[in-house]
Amino acid sequence: MEGPDGAGKTTQIEMLREWLKEQEYEVVLTREPGGTRISEEIRRIILNPEYKEMDAMTELLLYTAARAQLVKEVIGPAIESGKAVISDRFLDSTVVYQGIARGLGIERVYEINAHAIGRYMPDVTILLDLSAEEGLRRKKEERELDRMEAEGLRFHRLVAEGYRTLAERSPERIKTVDATLPKEVICGMIKDKVKVCMEVK
Amino acid sequence: MEGPDGAGKTTQIEMLREWLKEQEYEVVLTREPGGTRISEEIRRIILNPEYKEMDAMTELLLYTAARAQLVKEVIGPAIESGKAVISDRFLDSTVVYQGIARGLGIERVYEINAHAIGRYMPDVTILLDLSAEEGLRRKKEERELDRMEAEGLRFHRLVAEGYRTLAERSPERIKTVDATLPKEVICGMIKDKVKVCMEVK
Repeated sequence: MEGPDGAGKTTQIEMLREWLKEQEYEVVLTREPGGTRISEEIRRIILNPEYKEMDAMTELLLYTAARAQLVKEVIGPAIESGKAVISDRFLDSTVVYQGIARGLGIERVYEINAHAIGRYMPDVTILLDLSAEEGLRRKKEERELDRMEAEGLRFHRLVAEGYRTLAERSPERIKTVDATLPKEVICGMIKDKVKVCMEVK
Repeated sequence: MEGPDGAGKTTQIEMLREWLKEQEYEVVLTREPGGTRISEEIRRIILNPEYKEMDAMTELLLYTAARAQLVKEVIGPAIESGKAVISDRFLDSTVVYQGIARGLGIERVYEINAHAIGRYMPDVTILLDLSAEEGLRRKKEERELDRMEAEGLRFHRLVAEGYRTLAERSPERIKTVDATLPKEVICGMIKDKVKVCMEVK
């Protein structure tokens, strides 16, 4: 599940999980960065608002390190035992935030991430599409912002635009849904897209 | 300065620093992993003896993240302002420990590290060559072992052998010195090798 901060990923993950359970899937939820004790430790470094000096490449490598550990401990074993995995963010977040918004380059991020992910690429990625302005408005009402969320409007515009670029590059994997629609409508659209992917498998 | 644990890197760095100062160099010392507040935080994760479940790829990416930050904050600015930098371990440690001893592959580690190091490759790398047995014997007398040091003899044999492989691959950059010689003799040999590099520059 991908999309800018405030797009409603948590809500949709919960609804998708319920539906997958009804389809008799065992479902494993993960969130990024995090999901293992080592990855959560890495998360604390990445999101610490004090570390304003963090280099973009350091950031990219830390996200990818947290992901490698998550794939090894959680995602890989779950997939191998036939479970469904829903991840709150995955490699496309790194491609968008570090590759596009921080300017490190799309290809470079995919290349480094390939080492961490191996054969566990997502079967389908849902992009909850939302403008930067609307995402920030929703998020600010909630709580204090972490280091990534605290970036300015220009950065978040690059993120929203970056996601659209990725969806255009990988239309077979990344499916876009308008995040301003009512949540039940979004959920229905997500189910349809996941169903197609289940039939193909 | 490279070599297995217990090879005498710290002592030789101190002696080389003194000599470089006499040659009117401003000298910056760094150690890996670490050397910036973010890199030191990453170091704490990498070396925590509790994290026995750490994946080799996670380890590689964490070392490289710590390095990217060190290059950005310390090594790059020092080189650009004409200073000499001596680093206690650098990318060859990652190539040997993760690429060879953990089996991730030499090329893969060089490739990922190129993103973190850019044009700041060492002008000369001193390899203090020591057998795994002797290195472990020296280290155990000192203090409790961290997560990497606590690896078994087989791992440390791969490390000692791996360093020799790298020195054979890059004879123009990596200069080998027998770490069992008296420390003053070693220091003299290191000075000679660094002098050659200073003349070439």
